[in-house]
Amino acid sequence: MSDPLHLEDLFVDQRFRAGPLDVTSEEIKAFATKFDPQPFHLDEAAATSSLFGELVASGWHTASLTMRMLTECLPFAGGLIGAGGKVEWLRPVRPGDRLSVEATIRRISASKSRDDRGMVNMRVVTSNQSGESVQLLDANVLAFRRNAGARL
Amino acid sequence: MSDPLHLEDLFVDQRFRAGPLDVTSEEIKAFATKFDPQPFHLDEAAATSSLFGELVASGWHTASLTMRMLTECLPFAGGLIGAGGKVEWLRPVRPGDRLSVEATIRRISASKSRDDRGMVNMRVVTSNQSGESVQLLDANVLAFRRNAGARL
Repeated sequence: MSDPLHLEDLFVDQRFRAGPLDVTSEEIKAFATKFDPQPFHLDEAAATSSLFGELVASGWHTASLTMRMLTECLPFAGGLIGAGGKVEWLRPVRPGDRLSVEATIRRISASKSRDDRGMVNMRVVTSNQSGESVQLLDANVLAFRRNAGARL
Repeated sequence: MSDPLHLEDLFVDQRFRAGPLDVTSEEIKAFATKFDPQPFHLDEAAATSSLFGELVASGWHTASLTMRMLTECLPFAGGLIGAGGKVEWLRPVRPGDRLSVEATIRRISASKSRDDRGMVNMRVVTSNQSGESVQLLDANVLAFRRNAGARL
């Protein structure tokens, strides 16, 4: 892991990449059992008669795997702390898919109320092994200035 | 589970509720180990020196638990299939919290290209045992007409 990144280290159009990360049918089913127990996420046979026609990952599973990869490529000082974001699922994620992410900083705003931090807006594209985008995430993440160090 | 809901059964301001669902520190750590391995999601002691000051759930864990509850109260015909949405984390979720959700339909749009379906926009509020909102989700979900049945 490289040195922690502070607000002063970040700039618009800066890019971060992580992956690949392989998705298995066991993991798809395990996630779905806990969080999204629908036939097309749980069982290959039942999935054939669904809209998808095959077993696919829950969108929230794709989002969670994206977060996993973001923690690997965005070593923000104090942690990667999101305020929220907009997520779009463009294509299903299937067993055997190999995912990667690319995050690009689009805006950086200083906090108006706290002088030790700012908000970083980034576009995060999650892609499969064919280079197809499976998810877009427009995320707002906290970043701390170096002078915030004592409080982290 | 009640009868599956089709597009014709849905109306603006219709509400659906589910929960409660208890959150344990074991589940918070298990989710974080797989998807968001940061100290403030993994370890009580390490979390004390973080922004949160205590162990908290990953926002994606809160979102996934919200999905779990939505599958329990929204028996859409063909499944609960989201195109995406906007998520905001307002307050941390902590071990011992008891979550519930309330989803309210805000807009229903017929598909322009497919006569068997529409898109339902809903506001989903996830709350804790004190009635505080921990997450807002503005979600877009597919709904099928009754005449789509043969294809589901």
